[in-house]
Amino acid sequence: MINKLIAKIQKTQAPIVVGLDPMLDYIPAHVKEKAFAEFGETLEGAAEAIWQFNKEIVDKTYDLIPAVKPQIAMYEQFGVEGLKAYQRTVDYCHSKDLVVIGDIKRGDIGSTSAAYASGHLGKVQVGSKCYTAFNEDFATVNPYLGSDGVKPFLEVCREEGKGLFILVKTSNPSSGEFQDRLIDGRPLYELVGEKVAQWGREHMGDSYSYIGAVVGATYPEMGKILRKIMPKTFILVPGYGAQGGKGKDLAHFFNEDGYGAIVNSSRGIIAAYKQEAYAAFGAEQFGDASRAAVEDMAKDIREALG
Amino acid sequence: MINKLIAKIQKTQAPIVVGLDPMLDYIPAHVKEKAFAEFGETLEGAAEAIWQFNKEIVDKTYDLIPAVKPQIAMYEQFGVEGLKAYQRTVDYCHSKDLVVIGDIKRGDIGSTSAAYASGHLGKVQVGSKCYTAFNEDFATVNPYLGSDGVKPFLEVCREEGKGLFILVKTSNPSSGEFQDRLIDGRPLYELVGEKVAQWGREHMGDSYSYIGAVVGATYPEMGKILRKIMPKTFILVPGYGAQGGKGKDLAHFFNEDGYGAIVNSSRGIIAAYKQEAYAAFGAEQFGDASRAAVEDMAKDIREALG
Repeated sequence: MINKLIAKIQKTQAPIVVGLDPMLDYIPAHVKEKAFAEFGETLEGAAEAIWQFNKEIVDKTYDLIPAVKPQIAMYEQFGVEGLKAYQRTVDYCHSKDLVVIGDIKRGDIGSTSAAYASGHLGKVQVGSKCYTAFNEDFATVNPYLGSDGVKPFLEVCREEGKGLFILVKTSNPSSGEFQDRLIDGRPLYELVGEKVAQWGREHMGDSYSYIGAVVGATYPEMGKILRKIMPKTFILVPGYGAQGGKGKDLAHFFNEDGYGAIVNSSRGIIAAYKQEAYAAFGAEQFGDASRAAVEDMAKDIREALG
Repeated sequence: MINKLIAKIQKTQAPIVVGLDPMLDYIPAHVKEKAFAEFGETLEGAAEAIWQFNKEIVDKTYDLIPAVKPQIAMYEQFGVEGLKAYQRTVDYCHSKDLVVIGDIKRGDIGSTSAAYASGHLGKVQVGSKCYTAFNEDFATVNPYLGSDGVKPFLEVCREEGKGLFILVKTSNPSSGEFQDRLIDGRPLYELVGEKVAQWGREHMGDSYSYIGAVVGATYPEMGKILRKIMPKTFILVPGYGAQGGKGKDLAHFFNEDGYGAIVNSSRGIIAAYKQEAYAAFGAEQFGDASRAAVEDMAKDIREALG
């Protein structure tokens, strides 16, 4: 799947992932009104609004981008109905040949991680039959429990040709509270980065490993160091745009071959119509506003990479 | 909710939580056959088998125990259908007045943690209406992202009178890989423990905080130190039984008042009928085997506490 992701980045010339994190506040009134008219102001109605919103954004951007990253929390907050919309979104993005990165940040003891890995990246056995459940292409994983919490994910990726992005240095303001603490003079995130690089070497695609890392755009200097520690690791970079990361900060996350990173933007793309720069599109044309925002982001990154 | 949990521990004299982690392998053939006859060997059939299995165990043990801890991964692996069984299990346990600890180990950047907190412990707004989604009483949380990943959970707990158990030192063999690394001469889990104690002081129930910690039974010496660092923190102790933790190891996790910890057993209770000690019950009476295992576990802990 890492080979497919890289091929799609080459084709689109846009190392961009659109974060499908549909807060209800982002969804234009006319979309919500239509969904609520059909299903009421219910969890089902919220799920329908999310789904219609996602579909329009995907329809208007899928030819420009290699991948999407739905954040499962934004669906899970609406319970089972929300997770149906998540499933539907994953399936629809697959039908558009997009690579789907499930931003699930799971991680547990071995047997439990195995269940998460089966449900999100692999297959589950029911009697004599075998099924996929959520079936994303990549998943994000939390490393706090150590190797035996990660290994079941690695095994499933090897079997299924899928991939991971493991949290190394997250984009949020307090990520340093534990991740930056010094161990033998070096921050914890570097040790996690080394471990990710080691797992990665055992799970190589053609030019990059299919075991990637998450490093926030908000910490470009740390990105520079981690890029060196993990030379064959693909880096998923959140925090661009709304969280404060800028195009010029991104160069550090890429290798000299121009690859090795993919930059996420969520709010900045999916709620573009709410920004001054794209307000002229109007709420009715929110999908076109998102398309324009993708084009601008791709340009910003291409310029930053020179 | 911490006050309710403590009151129920006082009443049952059993600081025990039954882990409802229904792997299909644990479920007796007759339960699976009945479910598959109705729904086929499908994800729906698996979910029905899980639900019927859980219901029987809850019916046979609810009067002996204060709480249950469904591990959401075991449901999530079957996708949306599995999560329906999770929801049904949570609701049923509430109808039996059990405290429900959702073992979800979520944790993300602020806005995303807020969505998880709403979906699992709080309420979500849909237009003019307000709903609960999964509605557990406590949730487990991963601290790797630091304070701003935890704060939205704290806020929802304060509003809703609910609680957390934050991962400090997990029960698995490789938990030390990052958690035990020394920072200024002290292991990371102690720093996390101090942070949990600090959050806890700001969120106090009557005698204990409703912000608890997870510390594995498999590390009793570390439990002893953490007990001192977090005197008012309730400790959820996984790893008893099948994972290797023994009754005598548990004393360290409790305070001198005899409270301050609750011990989880999953496989050891729910698949008791598969153990030699309870084989006489037979697979048909698996619920009675679970009841006997709960009684033995309660006795083991009472003896360990003297």
